[in-house]
Amino acid sequence: MDTSHVGEGSIALVVSALLSTAGGFAVHKAISASGGTFIQAGLSGYDLCKKNTKTLIPESMGMISGTVFLMVMFLFTGIQFSRHVLASEKNFPHMVFEQLLTALLCICCMLLLGFADDVLNLKWRYKLVLPTLASLPLLMTHYVKFGSTTVVVPLLLRPLLGPSLNIGVLYYLYMSLLAVFSTNAINIYAGVNGLEVGQSVVMATSIAVFNLVELKGFHSSAHHLSLCLLMPFIATSFALFLHNKYPARAFVGDTFTYFAGMTFAVVGILGHFSKTVMLFFIPQLVNFAYSLPQLFRVIPCPRHRLPQYNAELDKLEYSRTTVRVKSLNPLVYRTICLLSALRLMAAEVTEKDAKHDGETTITVNNLTLINLVLVWSGPMHERTLVWTLLALQACGSALAFVIRYPLASLFYD
Amino acid sequence: MDTSHVGEGSIALVVSALLSTAGGFAVHKAISASGGTFIQAGLSGYDLCKKNTKTLIPESMGMISGTVFLMVMFLFTGIQFSRHVLASEKNFPHMVFEQLLTALLCICCMLLLGFADDVLNLKWRYKLVLPTLASLPLLMTHYVKFGSTTVVVPLLLRPLLGPSLNIGVLYYLYMSLLAVFSTNAINIYAGVNGLEVGQSVVMATSIAVFNLVELKGFHSSAHHLSLCLLMPFIATSFALFLHNKYPARAFVGDTFTYFAGMTFAVVGILGHFSKTVMLFFIPQLVNFAYSLPQLFRVIPCPRHRLPQYNAELDKLEYSRTTVRVKSLNPLVYRTICLLSALRLMAAEVTEKDAKHDGETTITVNNLTLINLVLVWSGPMHERTLVWTLLALQACGSALAFVIRYPLASLFYD
Repeated sequence: MDTSHVGEGSIALVVSALLSTAGGFAVHKAISASGGTFIQAGLSGYDLCKKNTKTLIPESMGMISGTVFLMVMFLFTGIQFSRHVLASEKNFPHMVFEQLLTALLCICCMLLLGFADDVLNLKWRYKLVLPTLASLPLLMTHYVKFGSTTVVVPLLLRPLLGPSLNIGVLYYLYMSLLAVFSTNAINIYAGVNGLEVGQSVVMATSIAVFNLVELKGFHSSAHHLSLCLLMPFIATSFALFLHNKYPARAFVGDTFTYFAGMTFAVVGILGHFSKTVMLFFIPQLVNFAYSLPQLFRVIPCPRHRLPQYNAELDKLEYSRTTVRVKSLNPLVYRTICLLSALRLMAAEVTEKDAKHDGETTITVNNLTLINLVLVWSGPMHERTLVWTLLALQACGSALAFVIRYPLASLFYD
Repeated sequence: MDTSHVGEGSIALVVSALLSTAGGFAVHKAISASGGTFIQAGLSGYDLCKKNTKTLIPESMGMISGTVFLMVMFLFTGIQFSRHVLASEKNFPHMVFEQLLTALLCICCMLLLGFADDVLNLKWRYKLVLPTLASLPLLMTHYVKFGSTTVVVPLLLRPLLGPSLNIGVLYYLYMSLLAVFSTNAINIYAGVNGLEVGQSVVMATSIAVFNLVELKGFHSSAHHLSLCLLMPFIATSFALFLHNKYPARAFVGDTFTYFAGMTFAVVGILGHFSKTVMLFFIPQLVNFAYSLPQLFRVIPCPRHRLPQYNAELDKLEYSRTTVRVKSLNPLVYRTICLLSALRLMAAEVTEKDAKHDGETTITVNNLTLINLVLVWSGPMHERTLVWTLLALQACGSALAFVIRYPLASLFYD
């Protein structure tokens, strides 16, 4: 059992908690103070899901929470390691220091990429290349610390594969893809007030709980490190959430979603729980899988797939896409009918559609988890919708714990 | 003598040179391709020193050279350390890895700050706080690697102070201030096409020559590291220079000046030559010192202190500031007269100035090194001016070498 830093660890956790709290207050104050600066710089947008869509709202406020996060981490690193530095440099914990540096480097890179994306509207390829390259030092640090690329084989497959399997470079490929996936998964599960930052706070808190549970376990120092990164993240993000929740007075921007995604990838990889961390992405995975037909243009994909504001009801309803039946692959058409029967999609056929040259058309909901929830629930007020989605995220975390603990014990000994 | 990495070192230098060259080409191509994107995002400006000031020129292009620099360094780190990782993790060179990570973290932070400044026009205090905090891990890495805060005392002072002096925390204060100074010194020595990036290329090349000279010396691995950081910096910056030189088709923005400044601070600190590195800042130091009366508003400071374009001559002449003699402290007035007699300032007294209520005024050049050169030379074409200033920078480097080698040997043994 790796208990080398547990003793000093509790001091570190207290220091981190104090700095995090201060960081949270700093973010809260800085956001109130700097909205005008962001609007003046053209970083602003209108809220499309409101009656009054004429009020400019500052965008990219994740920049503030991200920068304060970095500052807190710099101070934390300074305080945490100055003890070692002052005592004796012989026992300096290089490994932990390296892990912290790598974590901050990856996160800082993603803040830069996210902010550049908000300002410049980058092309997709850049959004894939930079996270991949930025994750290189992360993978290297992982290798230096843990070395092994061996995974434990589930009981069922052991007669076939033996008790463990060295998957070699595939393990690193997986972790690199994790960094790319997580930075983009949060980015596409977005669009209603408070969802991006709300889901991130729920995920971060859940992972922190997991770390606390595992703190006395085999990889104690790794979980400890994860906690020291998650605490300032939770505090600074929660302060941002207070401004971003319904009715939003600040938008978070890609700056925040990339920053948050990379933070989760980093704690998963450095905390040596890169498979478990994916369990906390259940709603994002569902949203991603459900989006695939539109992302691959099997079904047309409008620019915005946000729910639609119904001014009469002051509620949101699911947004729709209409397509000519003739233009659809018959298999796709039959799949839509099946999903519609299963209530997993809302589909409505219009024969001789006057708006489409008298051809037969089918109207379906845009394929996001947000719209699917509205298909199930009917029109809903934005505030209720977001809290429902956040409750769903919390249920996802509960499910993650069930899979990780009671269920996993059925498959592993 | 520290020769631990010299053998592998030459391979590393070749790898770095190849990656740097590729990076330079990438920057050259990317700048041509992305000007429109930057202009569309509002990152653009007019060239105030030209006849035609109506052409929008993309700004903040340092973002491109900086990002490519980071990518090159990530790839380099990957290639360089994969050998160790694949061979055996027992001999993994933690110290070098830590130093690289710290360097990239500091530089990435400054890119973020610089770009944020370009987009948001940050207040001065933020420009001081973030470099200070970002330099914390750098100082820590320095301490872990070198430990000592002892400086060698010049021969003359040895009877008084002994052969060496432990200046303790002052040493770290100095290095932290170095980071803040260098990020801002390049930023205020700017304003004519190609100067910011040109001076940085000259400085970087000079420091690289110094590293090459010292490569077989006492701190060989530190100078080696410095070279591995400077080569991609020189290549990517030179590519940027090709677009930024007269007539500029791209502006570099604060993004570049902060990025460059921090790169120099990082190589100075990690290369363990944080005092020598200041020698290569001679023109920036002169410009800073000369600017002080305006920075502290002893003499009024207009928003722009750029040289003034003379359309008749198609040349630049020094820009001026007029102030009522009555409002000046008599000591300041006498100093101006003295400096003017020494040709270190251009001053012209107008008695009963009609534009200033008939009071007596004095018109002086704006206090920048650029204007001072124009005071000495008379009106000059922008291209000639920049090449003159770059030649001056090169002379500064030559002087630096004289101070560092023949002169220093008079004062140290």
